[in-house]
Amino acid sequence: MMTQDNVKRTTVHIKGRSYTIVGNEKSEHIRLIAGLVDDKMKEIHEKNKSLDTTQLAVLTALNTMNDYMKLREDHEVLQKLIDEKED
Amino acid sequence: MMTQDNVKRTTVHIKGRSYTIVGNEKSEHIRLIAGLVDDKMKEIHEKNKSLDTTQLAVLTALNTMNDYMKLREDHEVLQKLIDEKED
Repeated sequence: MMTQDNVKRTTVHIKGRSYTIVGNEKSEHIRLIAGLVDDKMKEIHEKNKSLDTTQLAVLTALNTMNDYMKLREDHEVLQKLIDEKED
Repeated sequence: MMTQDNVKRTTVHIKGRSYTIVGNEKSEHIRLIAGLVDDKMKEIHEKNKSLDTTQLAVLTALNTMNDYMKLREDHEVLQKLIDEKED
């Protein structure tokens, strides 16, 4: 049986600080997401050693938001294609 | 005529610090992305006033990565649907 009230708390560690994420997502999923963010921060850090954690996190957010918006455009194109085929 | 060598530098301001983004993207696009990141940081800040900028930036990156991964799953589903119809 599925319940609506399935709130979990998952703590992840990024750059020496812990973040507790509250939500319906599985802990494994949260850890996967945190790992991807951590990898991206490390990747940007490799290219520019002088950046601090705030700058790395902001640049990671900018990067990911850019990827998201690009994918959203592609997604809308596919969605229209499917809608047209269904007509 | 389109040129490959179209690198631009765009400076955006997020939470009192400036970030110079180097790439092929139009400045307007970079500013749109930066505005979305800034909005998300403000939204998280509204819910938890005690967070500092680093925490806000990391949580924004986590949030955006989560949205991206969800959309990627949806996108793969649509892509498969289209591939099947084309067979």
